Amino acid sequence: MALKARVLYDFNSENPGEVSVNENEIVTLYSEQDIEGWLEGCNSKGERGLFPASYVEVVKNDTGSTLNNNNSSAGDNHQGSRYSNIPTEGFGDPSSSTVQNQTDNLSKTPATSPGFPPPVPVHQQHIYQDASHGSDEDWDDDWDDSSTVADEPGVAGGRYQRDFDGNGASIYRVSTSSMSRGGNAKSSATVSRNLNRFSTFVKSGGEAFVLGEAAGFVKDGDKICVVMGQYGPEWQENPYPFTCTIDDPTKQTKFKGMKSYIAYKLTPTHTPRQVNRRYKHFDWLYARLVEKFPVISVPHIPEKQATGRFEEDFISKRRRGLIWWMNHMTSHPVLSKCDVFQHFLTSNSTDEKAWKLGKRKAEKDEMVGANFFLTIATPSGPPLDLVEVESKIDGFKAFTKKMDDSVVQVNTTTNEFARKQITWFKKEYQKVGQSFKVLGNAFELDQQTYSVGLNQAIAYTGEAYEAIGDYFAEQPRLDVDPLMDLLQLYQGHLTNYPDIIHVQKGALTKVKESQKHVEEGKMDAPQAEGVKDRCNIISFATLAEIQHFHQIRVRDFKAQMQQYLTAQIGFFQKITGKLEEALQKYDNA
Amino acid sequence: MALKARVLYDFNSENPGEVSVNENEIVTLYSEQDIEGWLEGCNSKGERGLFPASYVEVVKNDTGSTLNNNNSSAGDNHQGSRYSNIPTEGFGDPSSSTVQNQTDNLSKTPATSPGFPPPVPVHQQHIYQDASHGSDEDWDDDWDDSSTVADEPGVAGGRYQRDFDGNGASIYRVSTSSMSRGGNAKSSATVSRNLNRFSTFVKSGGEAFVLGEAAGFVKDGDKICVVMGQYGPEWQENPYPFTCTIDDPTKQTKFKGMKSYIAYKLTPTHTPRQVNRRYKHFDWLYARLVEKFPVISVPHIPEKQATGRFEEDFISKRRRGLIWWMNHMTSHPVLSKCDVFQHFLTSNSTDEKAWKLGKRKAEKDEMVGANFFLTIATPSGPPLDLVEVESKIDGFKAFTKKMDDSVVQVNTTTNEFARKQITWFKKEYQKVGQSFKVLGNAFELDQQTYSVGLNQAIAYTGEAYEAIGDYFAEQPRLDVDPLMDLLQLYQGHLTNYPDIIHVQKGALTKVKESQKHVEEGKMDAPQAEGVKDRCNIISFATLAEIQHFHQIRVRDFKAQMQQYLTAQIGFFQKITGKLEEALQKYDNA
Repeated sequence: MALKARVLYDFNSENPGEVSVNENEIVTLYSEQDIEGWLEGCNSKGERGLFPASYVEVVKNDTGSTLNNNNSSAGDNHQGSRYSNIPTEGFGDPSSSTVQNQTDNLSKTPATSPGFPPPVPVHQQHIYQDASHGSDEDWDDDWDDSSTVADEPGVAGGRYQRDFDGNGASIYRVSTSSMSRGGNAKSSATVSRNLNRFSTFVKSGGEAFVLGEAAGFVKDGDKICVVMGQYGPEWQENPYPFTCTIDDPTKQTKFKGMKSYIAYKLTPTHTPRQVNRRYKHFDWLYARLVEKFPVISVPHIPEKQATGRFEEDFISKRRRGLIWWMNHMTSHPVLSKCDVFQHFLTSNSTDEKAWKLGKRKAEKDEMVGANFFLTIATPSGPPLDLVEVESKIDGFKAFTKKMDDSVVQVNTTTNEFARKQITWFKKEYQKVGQSFKVLGNAFELDQQTYSVGLNQAIAYTGEAYEAIGDYFAEQPRLDVDPLMDLLQLYQGHLTNYPDIIHVQKGALTKVKESQKHVEEGKMDAPQAEGVKDRCNIISFATLAEIQHFHQIRVRDFKAQMQQYLTAQIGFFQKITGKLEEALQKYDNA
Repeated sequence: MALKARVLYDFNSENPGEVSVNENEIVTLYSEQDIEGWLEGCNSKGERGLFPASYVEVVKNDTGSTLNNNNSSAGDNHQGSRYSNIPTEGFGDPSSSTVQNQTDNLSKTPATSPGFPPPVPVHQQHIYQDASHGSDEDWDDDWDDSSTVADEPGVAGGRYQRDFDGNGASIYRVSTSSMSRGGNAKSSATVSRNLNRFSTFVKSGGEAFVLGEAAGFVKDGDKICVVMGQYGPEWQENPYPFTCTIDDPTKQTKFKGMKSYIAYKLTPTHTPRQVNRRYKHFDWLYARLVEKFPVISVPHIPEKQATGRFEEDFISKRRRGLIWWMNHMTSHPVLSKCDVFQHFLTSNSTDEKAWKLGKRKAEKDEMVGANFFLTIATPSGPPLDLVEVESKIDGFKAFTKKMDDSVVQVNTTTNEFARKQITWFKKEYQKVGQSFKVLGNAFELDQQTYSVGLNQAIAYTGEAYEAIGDYFAEQPRLDVDPLMDLLQLYQGHLTNYPDIIHVQKGALTKVKESQKHVEEGKMDAPQAEGVKDRCNIISFATLAEIQHFHQIRVRDFKAQMQQYLTAQIGFFQKITGKLEEALQKYDNA
């Protein structure tokens, strides 16, 4: 029986050897095994060539009904969400069709359909940014001021920064650095490597670490401790907690006024100094953090924007986003302590030399990716139960999926609610106000002295309703906007988690594989034990991060819902007060 | 020069001898003098025949620009309102084109255009209903229960009840009764009669009275006194004021359940007895009052409705309308005291014979129409200054016009506001509530004990917003509906005033005419003095009625605006309370 696959997204061939395929088309495969993320096959027109393996789904059974079953089990009605591509059973054999493959053909991302984007392969959503890992010479280039900004942190699927050289060969520094850096790493040939070089598990360094390929010297100060808390593994708290305010975004110029930018004044509580930082500094820091911490959800910085960067609304919104970001950074036991963040917070902004020194040091940090896991110290005691870990991770996966859906819904609804308050609601109350004013005006024609009070009261009532219309229009700024800032931050976190779960699941799969290999006599027990130990470290780190996420989530949503309700109560009290004023006008009417 | 006229409304000929004309068409008239309300002329196609005189406007100057000037002076931007047809300079020579003529062709009323109805001739708006002036045998006919009810009290232009006999000849009982009843009336040939038999001035009996044709024996108890109050002439207050509640509309049946109707329980404060009255009793009473009182604004009873008469909403709305109506009746110094109303309030509803006796007496009342003016006693002192009266009447006319426009606007706006609260606003708040509930549900998946409180608080917040949506939907019943009931009642009054003003203006015109006739030696001075005296009575009555209108208007609008604002304040407080409850749920979250 010929091997068939169903095409998930349109793919247009751009190079010789490729063949175009269309969504829902059934293609014939020459082999189920992909070659560097490409499959060879024949489309329905009989044209033969290569297409991206991740763009098709192998049809196990040659009937359409099975195809549908596959679909429905993949994600039910949430099929279109960003969570629909996480395999429910972890990562099986690399040759299995459920493994998503990424190609260097990333510019050919599927076109998004209205409403929901089509399912985006997981590893395409969150690729560690290292394009800005440039030289100091690049640093002064005002790319933030350029109008050709295309990538937007915080938007799934849009953050993939390719780093092709002129010949089209791709270099993914992060995915290779952990191996090249650990010069004494030993290849473990008996545990199969994931052939998908674009898998997050591979790129994050998770695979290299599990396979024992990571190596580096961990200084005591670099140690990151996981402890057993009341609710399971958690990050050891920062013994020197601090916060940092972000104030006074001011427009500054350089090159004798040729270039303008906005500088934010940062005031950390644990240093005596304020520092000025620009958006591009935040962006650089973000890239360093993402590169360094594979299973930590680094909060997304506010989106880039090409135009209107000096407009008050935009500056205010960005500042609010940065404040939330800073809050999450300083609240995180690991992120808050890390060197690059401390450098960012404390390096004197007028001492160019000190800044560049710390910057270069951060960019040359060896304890990133796979090596990050080397720095983790797990609590003494027995290792975590693998089945329990898997169950917890699956539960969290289901949680993030549902939370993401609901955050999207709250976001859409409150956004629409805000829009309607500013337009419809305002208009309705103002129309009522105007009609009362017209009535008051008409009554003024009566020339009866005994109705002067009434006429004035009605006119005041009209003004009160006009004012209430304005209140409705002003209110979203005070309650919906802050709520949406929070939701946006959490949407960023929820975009991170599929990758984090992916790394953990990849590690678990390796443990299972190695156990099977031991049973089959292909691997010796100590080697398999090493895989298991390293997977245990990843599990501890992942569960600690999940615990941290739940804790800040509860803290943040509680605070924000309180703030929202308090603002709403104030709003309705303001309306009541205005109406009471109007009512009083009738007392002597 | 040929006599031209511009067509105001489309008219389609339905009988031989008539000719169709279209709005804005310029037609040639053979004579400016109408024949029984019809003009003979030639339309723009050259077809010759009759068309209703009231459907055209004579063009004095044969240029289009003058036509436009005429238009703009007639009513500015309010041309379409029901007030646009009141001649600004009173009533001139009956042969003048400004006198509106009414034909027996009333079924051919102009089609209404969307938005505003076209100007309806004044006397078409408020014609005294005497079609129900039927025999006792008719009384038990359940015409109120018939589904063929077409006329609706309270709607301008729709209240004209024709009383044709089988041959199509029309009898307007009111317009002739005052003359035929006053058998000893003397015709005053030297003051010209208004040839328009359909003029309110004529039909109300105003003309007959001014010309000295009314005569009747006025009993002391029938005397209606106008006194000079603080603000000018006013009705002498009812020395025995009372009120009357309307409760418990209940469905009753007769003819062994074959016929059903709603009975209202009336409880006047000045009698020991409750009485049951049906809508048709109110309708009969209304017709009597309208017939009897030419310059008193009789409050309109709620509209008839062919279907859904037993539905709760309709019964409730009708009851509210009847309560307002009753309030205006008992508040009116003249209406509250009159025999027919007292009969209605006090006649034992189980004593059929007593009821019929009073009913027949009311229907045979001689002091109606022209004779009503005989019952008016003016205050001692000099007569009113004609110029001042005219100025006051003009001022009131302008006032009612503007009040009518603004009442229409408030009515439209609040009606639309209510509709949007029931639909849009409810939906928006419920969508917000649902999205919070979905978020709360998602959070419940986290299985963290420390977030149970938050999850419950968010779920409660969702419910609170859903409840607020319901509050919005329920609120109009509590504030907009009562306001609209009031507006509807006043729209009825404002429909009455053009006729009242018309009568007064007609009387003033007669005075001017008679003065001119005296100067020309065509009339002797005492006769002219009589016209002036009788006009003075009408002026006193009209100004007293206007004063009463202003006073109850100020009272009613003050009370209703207070009630509206109080309900609105309660509404927003209820919302605030609900949100405060929700906020408290976070205290222990």
